[in-house]
Amino acid sequence: MALDLITRNSKTLSPEDAEKQVKVKGWAQEIRNLGGISFLILRDRYGTVQVTAPKKKVAPEIMDVLTSLSRESVVEVCGTAKASNQAKGGAEVIPESITVLSSAASPLPLGVVDKVNAEMDTRYDHRFMDLRKPEARAVFEIKSKVLRLIDEYLLGEDFVEVFSPKIVASGAEGGATLFKLDYFGKPAYLAQSPQLYKQMIMSTGLDRVFEIGPAFRAEPSDTVRHVSEFISFDGEMAYIDSMNDVLQMLEGCIQHVIKGVAETSSAQLEILGTEVKVPKAPYPIIEYKDAVEIVTKEGMEISLGDDLGTEGEKILGSVMEEKGYEMYWIVEYPEEAKPFYIMEKEGTPYSYSFDLDYKGQEISSGGQREHRYNVLVDRISKKGLNPDDFNFYLDAFKYGMPPHGGWGIGVERLVQKMLSLPNVREAILFPRDRVRLVP
Amino acid sequence: MALDLITRNSKTLSPEDAEKQVKVKGWAQEIRNLGGISFLILRDRYGTVQVTAPKKKVAPEIMDVLTSLSRESVVEVCGTAKASNQAKGGAEVIPESITVLSSAASPLPLGVVDKVNAEMDTRYDHRFMDLRKPEARAVFEIKSKVLRLIDEYLLGEDFVEVFSPKIVASGAEGGATLFKLDYFGKPAYLAQSPQLYKQMIMSTGLDRVFEIGPAFRAEPSDTVRHVSEFISFDGEMAYIDSMNDVLQMLEGCIQHVIKGVAETSSAQLEILGTEVKVPKAPYPIIEYKDAVEIVTKEGMEISLGDDLGTEGEKILGSVMEEKGYEMYWIVEYPEEAKPFYIMEKEGTPYSYSFDLDYKGQEISSGGQREHRYNVLVDRISKKGLNPDDFNFYLDAFKYGMPPHGGWGIGVERLVQKMLSLPNVREAILFPRDRVRLVP
Repeated sequence: MALDLITRNSKTLSPEDAEKQVKVKGWAQEIRNLGGISFLILRDRYGTVQVTAPKKKVAPEIMDVLTSLSRESVVEVCGTAKASNQAKGGAEVIPESITVLSSAASPLPLGVVDKVNAEMDTRYDHRFMDLRKPEARAVFEIKSKVLRLIDEYLLGEDFVEVFSPKIVASGAEGGATLFKLDYFGKPAYLAQSPQLYKQMIMSTGLDRVFEIGPAFRAEPSDTVRHVSEFISFDGEMAYIDSMNDVLQMLEGCIQHVIKGVAETSSAQLEILGTEVKVPKAPYPIIEYKDAVEIVTKEGMEISLGDDLGTEGEKILGSVMEEKGYEMYWIVEYPEEAKPFYIMEKEGTPYSYSFDLDYKGQEISSGGQREHRYNVLVDRISKKGLNPDDFNFYLDAFKYGMPPHGGWGIGVERLVQKMLSLPNVREAILFPRDRVRLVP
Repeated sequence: MALDLITRNSKTLSPEDAEKQVKVKGWAQEIRNLGGISFLILRDRYGTVQVTAPKKKVAPEIMDVLTSLSRESVVEVCGTAKASNQAKGGAEVIPESITVLSSAASPLPLGVVDKVNAEMDTRYDHRFMDLRKPEARAVFEIKSKVLRLIDEYLLGEDFVEVFSPKIVASGAEGGATLFKLDYFGKPAYLAQSPQLYKQMIMSTGLDRVFEIGPAFRAEPSDTVRHVSEFISFDGEMAYIDSMNDVLQMLEGCIQHVIKGVAETSSAQLEILGTEVKVPKAPYPIIEYKDAVEIVTKEGMEISLGDDLGTEGEKILGSVMEEKGYEMYWIVEYPEEAKPFYIMEKEGTPYSYSFDLDYKGQEISSGGQREHRYNVLVDRISKKGLNPDDFNFYLDAFKYGMPPHGGWGIGVERLVQKMLSLPNVREAILFPRDRVRLVP
């Protein structure tokens, strides 16, 4: 039999396989022994396969295995495929042998098919089990697709994918959220973002780069949108004429990503019971001061110069939704609210900066960078930092630095908002936060 | 003039632009003022553009700018394109305006076109400047291509790209090279590899995954192949029939990558003055004990059980090169030499493990993993480790874990060997090692 055995899974087994000898593998999701007949529902990455064992047709050893098999054990079934109207995919397998590859202990720490919703902590304590649920897993097939679509778009725009160091001597985003480590006896930190390094690269001739990699923030907030390790998608472009070049590039990329998911991930979206809408483009551009006016009109108490905050973002999100926009830019934030590397808008209290908001939540920020050495040094001092701590960075501005700009975007926040997930952790396999370091 | 100005660079400017109004930008690589005529060689990512200023034809202000311009300043030139046999690309620009976007200080910390080889430390101290050399930069265009080719191949094989946490509670590869950090008051470590996590994922149903991300080793060795932060390309596959499934997948992927670079990176390879040879496939499979015999025959002193070491790898590399093989597997290492997660070959002192060697250097290792809970616990103890420290990992083996295997490969080592670079650091933008934390 082994010779003409073909391997099938829940996606590939079909009525066309009828009478063929097949091999299927998976987790024993359900075992029903009804006396005269037994059913085994095998789950794999794509769905389930039904193994049907009529007592009269299969060997007694097989019935014994099925009777003693524990749920979630991993098994390999060899047998004959049969067309079946009752089975998913229109075909089932009549077993000739069942091998238990890995026997599951009982009781399970978490149900896979249970309708009961487990507490979030329980789910994440047993994340390997939680991810056996198709709806938990589908998010990661989509996340992988998002990465592929980003690559596709930016490589088409002549970007180079780069990696910057994650162990660094200085933070880019302020000291409060730095993780400190011992680096061969010297103090060092985990990179909060690739900001300083992607800017230094702009001085090398690699004039368009992007990076997809971990960023670390010792984030004390316990919210549904903060974690201490996330995947940051950063881009930086040299020789821009204005910040508008950056907005256009990022908008093109995001549209390509969301369109790509909407068009090619229908199986996963169906499992998630959600649809992905391609945002109306071009994304409207709202000046910060107008955004403040809009949320003030809606009854929020806020002054010019204040951060919009979670509440302001939500209110603005509702207003924009009513106008049919899920994605929109907020530009010209006060320079005071922005990091040292952002370029000021001369003669105003504002800056060449932007946020990109998606359904009432910021998912990206960026802007044109200050590329003039002297002005940059002044801005570092103005922010209460010591320019000497940034010499390794400032050097790259002394010997010819083109005008440049870019963005940082949280991949998981993008996925969260796209799929309307309740928590950014749903888009992270093994999340890290103030209280969670394992698994 | 601004209205019909077209932007060109060294790749796109051509004789077909003759008489058009163009704008070019770049670093002032060379300025020659010959009295009656001045030449400015502008460098960008792709090469150089010649700006030719005959005193009689251009405004005096332009001659002034050219006379005072410092090398490596960033400038924007607007002018008329002209066909020219003397200029690279067959065209030059007669300037109508020259704007200095960023003036370079003098002296330069490092020459860009100098023939003199700077010390490695000087180069890496001023890496932004070092990377202005086309041959330093070309490596990263190829590295980016490598990543794209990996994605292309594995996504075609239904792999899902994942990210595992880099802040972890336990190391996978032994305590000696762990970086320790303070995680909200708890001790934590930087991940040496995604090993434990990609294995846990095998228990979820995401049956084929890969990850490309940083790995951290507090590596005390000062060698041309060790750094403390590198990009690890890891793959893991569930439901394998044997280790051979892994070898085939990785071989297919590596061949796709090297072929892709050879076929589509000719511009970069020319700059590097190197050729990339596609290794002869299938890669020969050498058992560890035969490898020991081969190097013994070549005069090396080594006993069964010993690591081949750098010397042994090199000797084996020469022997294989003579046979026409640049890439080959070494399989069935003694289980003693391999980590706990590798499967033993029952009844022998060997294991289901492999190394992939490229031109006399290991670039990847992997194998079939031990998926049986009890055997795995025993192996952890046998290695002198405490199974309790690995509960978060072991849990994933208790409730149905399919047989699985995979690999880890150092992206920079692969690039280094492919391009015959003298040091792995040449394939890292900002390397980290025992003595280097900046830039």
